[in-house]
Amino acid sequence: MLPAKNPSKLSAWQELLTTHTSIKDQSIRSLFDKDQHRVETFSAHTDQIYLDYSKNLVSAEVMEALLKLVDEAGLKDAIRAMQSADRINERENRAVMHYALRKSSGSIELEGTDLMELVHTELAKIERISSKIHQGEWLGHTGKPIRNIVNIGIGGSDLGPYMVCNALRPYWSSIKPYFLSNIDAAQWEEIKEEIDAEETLFIIASKTFTTDETMTNARTARQWFIDEIGTTDALAKHFLAVSTNLKETAAFGIPDENIVGFWDWVGGRFSLWSSIGLSIACTVGYDRFKELLAGAEKMDTHLFEADFDQNLPVIMALLSIWNVNFCGCKSHAILPYDHRLKDFPRFLQQMIMESNGKQVDRSGNRVDYPTCPIYFGEPGTNGQHAFYQLLHQGTDAVPADFIVFAKPAHAHDEHHTKLIANCFAQSEALMDGSPNDDPFRNFEGNRPSNTLVIDELNPENLGALIALYEHQVFVQGVLWNIFSFDQWGVELGKVLAKKIVSGKEESSNPSTRSLLQKVKDLQ
Amino acid sequence: MLPAKNPSKLSAWQELLTTHTSIKDQSIRSLFDKDQHRVETFSAHTDQIYLDYSKNLVSAEVMEALLKLVDEAGLKDAIRAMQSADRINERENRAVMHYALRKSSGSIELEGTDLMELVHTELAKIERISSKIHQGEWLGHTGKPIRNIVNIGIGGSDLGPYMVCNALRPYWSSIKPYFLSNIDAAQWEEIKEEIDAEETLFIIASKTFTTDETMTNARTARQWFIDEIGTTDALAKHFLAVSTNLKETAAFGIPDENIVGFWDWVGGRFSLWSSIGLSIACTVGYDRFKELLAGAEKMDTHLFEADFDQNLPVIMALLSIWNVNFCGCKSHAILPYDHRLKDFPRFLQQMIMESNGKQVDRSGNRVDYPTCPIYFGEPGTNGQHAFYQLLHQGTDAVPADFIVFAKPAHAHDEHHTKLIANCFAQSEALMDGSPNDDPFRNFEGNRPSNTLVIDELNPENLGALIALYEHQVFVQGVLWNIFSFDQWGVELGKVLAKKIVSGKEESSNPSTRSLLQKVKDLQ
Repeated sequence: MLPAKNPSKLSAWQELLTTHTSIKDQSIRSLFDKDQHRVETFSAHTDQIYLDYSKNLVSAEVMEALLKLVDEAGLKDAIRAMQSADRINERENRAVMHYALRKSSGSIELEGTDLMELVHTELAKIERISSKIHQGEWLGHTGKPIRNIVNIGIGGSDLGPYMVCNALRPYWSSIKPYFLSNIDAAQWEEIKEEIDAEETLFIIASKTFTTDETMTNARTARQWFIDEIGTTDALAKHFLAVSTNLKETAAFGIPDENIVGFWDWVGGRFSLWSSIGLSIACTVGYDRFKELLAGAEKMDTHLFEADFDQNLPVIMALLSIWNVNFCGCKSHAILPYDHRLKDFPRFLQQMIMESNGKQVDRSGNRVDYPTCPIYFGEPGTNGQHAFYQLLHQGTDAVPADFIVFAKPAHAHDEHHTKLIANCFAQSEALMDGSPNDDPFRNFEGNRPSNTLVIDELNPENLGALIALYEHQVFVQGVLWNIFSFDQWGVELGKVLAKKIVSGKEESSNPSTRSLLQKVKDLQ
Repeated sequence: MLPAKNPSKLSAWQELLTTHTSIKDQSIRSLFDKDQHRVETFSAHTDQIYLDYSKNLVSAEVMEALLKLVDEAGLKDAIRAMQSADRINERENRAVMHYALRKSSGSIELEGTDLMELVHTELAKIERISSKIHQGEWLGHTGKPIRNIVNIGIGGSDLGPYMVCNALRPYWSSIKPYFLSNIDAAQWEEIKEEIDAEETLFIIASKTFTTDETMTNARTARQWFIDEIGTTDALAKHFLAVSTNLKETAAFGIPDENIVGFWDWVGGRFSLWSSIGLSIACTVGYDRFKELLAGAEKMDTHLFEADFDQNLPVIMALLSIWNVNFCGCKSHAILPYDHRLKDFPRFLQQMIMESNGKQVDRSGNRVDYPTCPIYFGEPGTNGQHAFYQLLHQGTDAVPADFIVFAKPAHAHDEHHTKLIANCFAQSEALMDGSPNDDPFRNFEGNRPSNTLVIDELNPENLGALIALYEHQVFVQGVLWNIFSFDQWGVELGKVLAKKIVSGKEESSNPSTRSLLQKVKDLQ
């Protein structure tokens, strides 16, 4: 069980309110003027990731009060509860064990079962299947090796693998991954144009094998495949499933040996480390997939062992609380200066907003403080020519995370030098600003940001980066006193959509009725 | 000249504050209970787009006060100023004439020059070039027809054409468009893998031919091309430019007949209708490009001629002012229920946030009210499995625009029926909510949204949809009393980046110095 404490009633929260009053009229720049060694104080690192958070409006006093807040909120106990496989996803009565998916040794018991045994059995299956595919040994019905995989899934069964595959593009071999998620068949129409059924393998990723979008797409892909190949006998060599519903997968035509599973203690948005990552392993190879896991495991160890004042996910969570609950920020920009991470902002958008976009605390009361802000972003330098105008001169401050890699995966040094220069120039401009007598060219500055510096974008470092944000989400949730691992907020829309599709009863909402009529008139 | 009136000093603004006090504790649902014919009152349409805005917390009184606000703010005069080619981009002393780009007849004088003559001369060039390419008559150096075009540009020279090409994918023929924008060469490395130099044509889109990202990419592409083909003689058949700098384009190796230009009265983020749209015309054909323009022209006429209370861009701008400045909303979700519009949210993110992310009013004073919120979004149904949790149960209301098309471009009826059902179910769920004794499953509802219903996603309707938002931006800017058509906020970062790249002087910022050292150590 997680402790359930209203953070706004904790004494550290009150301290923070007072501290905010005394610091709010200072500029971040002035804090640098007072202390030229500020960077050393306000930075931290793991073996893989260096975090400079000196460009936030924080002093030693602020950080001290924030660290007191995590203590009072019971973060230590919360971490211990997660480690011990307590059912901290209380409203679904489930443990939250994505960290177990990347644990390489030891055991974790959950009611008499050793989770590690389960994990390693499933990993062995992933290895067996993905290696055959990756190495061109998995032959299709007509004897051709597989060249395309189409991952059919949505939400957590889509965004994680999609983002990771694109991020690791320099590691691709002969397999090209496609991702089919949207129930809008326009997406399928695009993918269909690019693939040859004889060389294509479909991975249907749905734990229950009932997710409407995924199964509607799967049935359409199945029919197309049969039409192309001319026989249902070929299904066994072209369809895999990530599912636990063996009855439905069999009915679909997928043999049991083509199925990998996972467990209710892995939430969708934290599942890329599980069998949901099969498409990653097929694309970049099983060894790379294991490196991804190894990087995440290092971040897990860091969360569990590092002092909180040197603990990256804890620090980043605390800064977000500071920015949201004391400085009044309502959004947060994710700005990766690497084009391969172009999907990282929307991956985090899901991970963070679906986890912490909640308004009821762990006791079931409406919170009296804001929780999750809007996360958004685009890769640099593209974002600079899009929405950075608002970051620099909009009416509200938008805290930002800059992410940059020292070494590129290409030989174009001029490009990389400029890329890095742009990244650092932006965070400097946001913070320092630049006074100008022309009010239209005046930059107030004082916009907070973090900068993450990483050696290179390889599987291991990417694993650590993702796990960093996963743990930030966890710590944020502990501090906001909300349940981060359920998502009841998505249920009502599903129910109403089904009702509309069934057409059995008219909607009670006059606008819905009128809109349906409007569509009908146009069709 | 635009009028410069502080909106918060206008009497309608005060009225709106009062009206807000009286309506704020009511729910949108209760407004429906009171008036079953609410949809008829709070909807409007053009020939192409139907807008249902009944799911906003507005009453007849609110709309009346909002309409009074546009009158007091001088919108009529502002529109007239734009129509008359006044230099309403005052801080750059430029007219704002993107509407002229799609005007099919008549004339517009700007200081003795007929803009329409300029536009039609340039359109003739676009037609000549794009038709040859689109029809496979433009042969490369080795005699092969062009199959790939690579648009090299960033910001407005990238996002618009990119979004439109993807939106109109069912209209593609044999030309495949690529978009190179980011200075990170990781993007170029991806594109390079997919193209054959002999069949590829590059379009370099930079008005000044000096944009750093674009020219760095252009030089890299040029060198690659020369290495592949083995001679600089081939450049003339494989490089086009959208530029006005004929000296630099010649030095680059591009003959004058391969150059299309545009003018300082077209802002980058409003330029897809100009020569910047060359990649669109090459991809979908010139006739389709003209249909896109024709759709936008219809929306222009609508803005100019429809009464404000039936005027879509005016109504949508007013609703955003209402949500931001009276209801306190800080973000706005763009939710297209069509996968082909997956890039539409980030296209609008640029168009709106770069235009209206300003904090200084037209008199040069710091505004005392918030201006542009954060625009973000993903296509439905994908977003439902990502951030909709926060939309339904987050602590702050996020107004949303739902966009849906009655007719799909494919034959998968089941998919389309479900897609539309999901769209309407979501707006209903957001507004109606659903009371539940379990606080975790309780939906408060009362989240405002607009729904746009359009016949089908074709070039003409897409043109109208884009122009709708362009004009919304204009009206928002008039009401917020800011200059929407410059972007001084992007300048400081550019200057600092150059300074860092030059390495001539050390940064005065200790964090920047330390970050540069960190990267150097890792390299």
